[in-house]
Amino acid sequence: MTLSERDKKHLWHPLTQHKLYPDHLPIVRAKGVYLYDDKENRYIDGIASWYTCMYGHCNDKIASKIKQQIDELDQVVFSGFTHKAAIELSEKLIGILPDNQQKIFFSDNGSTSVDVAIKMALQYHYNNGEKRSKLIALEDAFHGDTFGAMSVSGLSVYNGPFEDFLLTIDRIDVPNKNNFEEVCIKFESLIASGKIAAFIYEPLVQGAAAMKMYEPDFLNKLLKIAKKYHVLTIADEVMTGFGKTGRNFASDYMSIKPDIICLSKSLTAGVAPMAITSCTMEVYNSFYDSDLKKGFFHGHTYSANPLACSAAIAGIDLLRSEGIQQNIKLITNRHLEFKSVMDNHPKVKSTRVLGVIFALDLDIEMKRYGKLRDKLYNFYMKNGVFLRPLGNTIYILPPFVISDSELKKVYSVIKQSLEVV
Amino acid sequence: MTLSERDKKHLWHPLTQHKLYPDHLPIVRAKGVYLYDDKENRYIDGIASWYTCMYGHCNDKIASKIKQQIDELDQVVFSGFTHKAAIELSEKLIGILPDNQQKIFFSDNGSTSVDVAIKMALQYHYNNGEKRSKLIALEDAFHGDTFGAMSVSGLSVYNGPFEDFLLTIDRIDVPNKNNFEEVCIKFESLIASGKIAAFIYEPLVQGAAAMKMYEPDFLNKLLKIAKKYHVLTIADEVMTGFGKTGRNFASDYMSIKPDIICLSKSLTAGVAPMAITSCTMEVYNSFYDSDLKKGFFHGHTYSANPLACSAAIAGIDLLRSEGIQQNIKLITNRHLEFKSVMDNHPKVKSTRVLGVIFALDLDIEMKRYGKLRDKLYNFYMKNGVFLRPLGNTIYILPPFVISDSELKKVYSVIKQSLEVV
Repeated sequence: MTLSERDKKHLWHPLTQHKLYPDHLPIVRAKGVYLYDDKENRYIDGIASWYTCMYGHCNDKIASKIKQQIDELDQVVFSGFTHKAAIELSEKLIGILPDNQQKIFFSDNGSTSVDVAIKMALQYHYNNGEKRSKLIALEDAFHGDTFGAMSVSGLSVYNGPFEDFLLTIDRIDVPNKNNFEEVCIKFESLIASGKIAAFIYEPLVQGAAAMKMYEPDFLNKLLKIAKKYHVLTIADEVMTGFGKTGRNFASDYMSIKPDIICLSKSLTAGVAPMAITSCTMEVYNSFYDSDLKKGFFHGHTYSANPLACSAAIAGIDLLRSEGIQQNIKLITNRHLEFKSVMDNHPKVKSTRVLGVIFALDLDIEMKRYGKLRDKLYNFYMKNGVFLRPLGNTIYILPPFVISDSELKKVYSVIKQSLEVV
Repeated sequence: MTLSERDKKHLWHPLTQHKLYPDHLPIVRAKGVYLYDDKENRYIDGIASWYTCMYGHCNDKIASKIKQQIDELDQVVFSGFTHKAAIELSEKLIGILPDNQQKIFFSDNGSTSVDVAIKMALQYHYNNGEKRSKLIALEDAFHGDTFGAMSVSGLSVYNGPFEDFLLTIDRIDVPNKNNFEEVCIKFESLIASGKIAAFIYEPLVQGAAAMKMYEPDFLNKLLKIAKKYHVLTIADEVMTGFGKTGRNFASDYMSIKPDIICLSKSLTAGVAPMAITSCTMEVYNSFYDSDLKKGFFHGHTYSANPLACSAAIAGIDLLRSEGIQQNIKLITNRHLEFKSVMDNHPKVKSTRVLGVIFALDLDIEMKRYGKLRDKLYNFYMKNGVFLRPLGNTIYILPPFVISDSELKKVYSVIKQSLEVV
């Protein structure tokens, strides 16, 4: 039996209607920006395997760290015990996070980092003797798939079966120059109810909403309003974190800093699942008490897993290196050049760039999953590039280590693809 | 600065009131059953680092698999793609899971495996055109810390701040010979409402409720009632899975098999976070449809992470080996001998053993966190054994590779500890 046939027997893939999409291509190895299938075809990983492998696949520096760690300390209970990799990681993270972030709480994926952030925000007010029972989120947000994270995500046909089981959320539109005043008025009036514990948002780029971007100035104004009413602000930087927007974190673009930040994906450089929810001393201090019950009784068994911490340390070292910082600038510039070309294409409605994120919307209506979308996907794969169009949006989020010629190939395949739709 | 001082600066540990418990002992390496601190003191890991490192720390066979995998394939999107480690793991798992389990869905920790199971159960009925909006859980259950998992866990002072944000759950007492009939009547009458989507339970051992055990016959009867009314049954085997109860899974003790099983912890042999929710073809088939919307739109970025899959494959191979199977029997027998000794101790109220799990309740009232509990904990550590008493319960859940003399040491330290309380 081939790998593909064996796959069909027992595997239930995420986000997949198996009756419509029965086939899963076996990837047998990966190196740098390339994925290799079981027939030795290679594909440029144009989205860094969902924004994780930003320093390239099977990066030697990261691999050697992992090999060292697995012989030294695999796992240890993180209540009562600590270990070097977690300590070193916390120091390195605090070194690059916005200055007001001072404490690091571990979990295992983006969804749990959001559930943790929501719980922190609710208990923060609870511990301070205030009952605040609602959150504000942005329309079209995506924050994950656990019940807390689903609640603050936008409703769609895909989470419909769970609509009755979610937290109570107020939603505001993503601010733009046309609706900005209106959004601010609604935001402030929702907050004035006194019931709002926190405002959660993907700063500047809504990834799953097809790399929708919005302006720092607008977000900064919303953050200012939230601060005024002592509503906690939660930046979900699971997708945007670690250099992808051109700065270490998207939050670096605003003068007002969030109270809580969620991190995952490229945190571990594509090696193992791990997530972090960081926060200010003010948040932490509301839990710090002689009353045991005021503590934060949340914990996952593999919290601060040493292997994942080691990968994260190596990742941050790479991120801070001159080479990677230069690459980020180069990719951004190339994206801007490509943008100006695509802006004049008759089939292109709009384009946008932030850091290494490039996106274009086609002037064609398309379903998120559907024949046209599949045609594009297959065209890219046939031409050796892995990209996942989202509805009528084609986007690139390449590993930082992509070369100029590889990037040119991605652009050229996208240009050609516009002829087939 | 020492590691312990550096730890205090930025780390927020799980399940920890830092004001009462400021110090975290640095563990610098681990091998086999031993943890080593920064002063080269060693400790027998009497609870296998929360039931994960069952084949010993930094196991050479597992480490060599990881080293191979990290050079081959680190990470790949698991929607549209597949890979060898995930396929092989799915085959090995299906080989040891109860026969009715046929499909494997990945996530990253025990909590998410439960959120996934709850979502599967709710959407199963939804896809079949029935609206069932409630679940039944056992009193004193613990299923995790995300919002779904918290909902089906027992309420306590520790999740009090979130009480208003949880799913609607009906609860029944854990069945015993005194309340059994009553429990069955309540269970059946709850189910008769027609609103119950699923019954979730930790089979035979409630870990966080201090290794509380109950009889297979009682559970089997409840499962039979659930089946009769087409209520899905979800076995949370995150703690009990992979040989700890003396069989591969606790569900192997009952003739009625669950529809859905949650797995994590020792699934990856203590190397990296990963979880699995397995299910029957009947559950899977309710999602398998030409209607895209009937699919299961849940997904985590690191789903089926190749490193974690590799560790899990090596773990299952070890579990099935004659050596480990023999060790499980040996440890069980030693536990039973120790049980019969402790049964006559004046300070012991009760004892219990299932597989490699040993627990005794002291005849003393103690708080889950408190001075007496801390006194015991410190006594064990001072004597070179890592155990975490839960209230007045002292329990052992050692790695399968513990030797006879190491086991004797654990027993002897426990016996001595009864003199200090």
